[in-house]
Amino acid sequence: MPTYRLDLAYDGSRFHGYARQPNVRTVQGELEEALEPHTGGAGTFVAGRTDKGVHATEQVVSFCCPTLDTGYVMRSLNSRLAPEIAVHRLVEVSDDFHARFSATGRAYRYRIRNAEVHDPLSAASVWTVADPLDVDAMNVAAAAFVGEHDFAAFCRRLEDRSLIREVFWARWRRKGDRIDLSIGARSFCHQMVRSIVALCVEVGRGNIEASDVPEILESLDRSRSKGVAPPHGLALVAVAYDDEPLPRPSWVATPP
Amino acid sequence: MPTYRLDLAYDGSRFHGYARQPNVRTVQGELEEALEPHTGGAGTFVAGRTDKGVHATEQVVSFCCPTLDTGYVMRSLNSRLAPEIAVHRLVEVSDDFHARFSATGRAYRYRIRNAEVHDPLSAASVWTVADPLDVDAMNVAAAAFVGEHDFAAFCRRLEDRSLIREVFWARWRRKGDRIDLSIGARSFCHQMVRSIVALCVEVGRGNIEASDVPEILESLDRSRSKGVAPPHGLALVAVAYDDEPLPRPSWVATPP
Repeated sequence: MPTYRLDLAYDGSRFHGYARQPNVRTVQGELEEALEPHTGGAGTFVAGRTDKGVHATEQVVSFCCPTLDTGYVMRSLNSRLAPEIAVHRLVEVSDDFHARFSATGRAYRYRIRNAEVHDPLSAASVWTVADPLDVDAMNVAAAAFVGEHDFAAFCRRLEDRSLIREVFWARWRRKGDRIDLSIGARSFCHQMVRSIVALCVEVGRGNIEASDVPEILESLDRSRSKGVAPPHGLALVAVAYDDEPLPRPSWVATPP
Repeated sequence: MPTYRLDLAYDGSRFHGYARQPNVRTVQGELEEALEPHTGGAGTFVAGRTDKGVHATEQVVSFCCPTLDTGYVMRSLNSRLAPEIAVHRLVEVSDDFHARFSATGRAYRYRIRNAEVHDPLSAASVWTVADPLDVDAMNVAAAAFVGEHDFAAFCRRLEDRSLIREVFWARWRRKGDRIDLSIGARSFCHQMVRSIVALCVEVGRGNIEASDVPEILESLDRSRSKGVAPPHGLALVAVAYDDEPLPRPSWVATPP
């Protein structure tokens, strides 16, 4: 049976996360239900299992099923899943493609509105922080996460899996009252980006010194980090496969 | 009693329009209910009575009531009305200020995504049009509306009121797959912007010649226009009072 790659975006606001769960509405549940008449009920694999409330602009799914009319299936999915889910691409790929295990990089963004009052039209995808934030200090903090580290102080531990991850870049950018983080890694552990954001914001508020961040990271002690930022500011924005470069925004320098 | 000016923004998605109506959720209804404990039930006036589904980034309301602690009331309103409504400003103004009758200009924007597939995170405030659109032709069409005209072919007639309006500017701008209209006027009649958008899109699709637009406008015949574009692409973005200039985006030329 052929293998298919499906690229999608979603507004995570009214889903209980990506991964299928009984009795609640999930992105995977909606997608597999919409695919069912075409695939006969294929199971799907996903590049990044986003949490409840987290969005994606570029998520990747793979599955095997009998040959599809991809143009027809894509139109059918989009008419059924709009407006919360959009399918950008549906293509046949080589048999060894696996959305999760073949991925060589993932990039997330986190959006903050640094203002007294929230903005209704972006409220579903931006975290409003009223306290003034020092973005230079937040960038010193963010730089401490780049490279290979054990992220035990910044993740929820699931069973006994390794929490060692390699972060390619982590950089904040202020533009007016918007402050965005871009972060890229081969993979992330659970709640890692939101924990990093929460600590950076405490640094930006002046409650923690940026120079203390390396020691908090090295402590491997989750009680030393500052909880997790809300999910709705977070979005998965890119997944890379094989040798293709993981796209980074223009304001993150490309390594030499 | 002092007069107050309140500036607000809202996501119109889940409101039955701005104006209070019985038994349905409206922006005015929510706002007056939240104001009630502070004002004792003051009635409010508004600069632009947006329709069901239409948004505002800068809307203006005025009302009279006993002296308010404006900082406290603003925080109270924001904590009660978030995330769909945000109050940016609450200030005492001169007694002759009236949000509707003192306004000397209103500006709206209309957002289109010109792509096959919608974008979930902006779906609530952008109209997705799959057919390729010729923005140069849409700008020729839009220019026909500038100046003083009887907009009978582009408005819903309410009683016997005049439909003569002066449009200051009307200009489309393409940026990637986004096409936005900015339009400014002293005031607009009902459904006028959405009717102009619908006709411009028909011109952009190539179904109507841009050179035919002046004659359609002059016909004063509503059956000659092309219905109304969906409400969710539209937002009130500015209101001007007295001699202050109505703000226009950088891509709309300022008159000499």
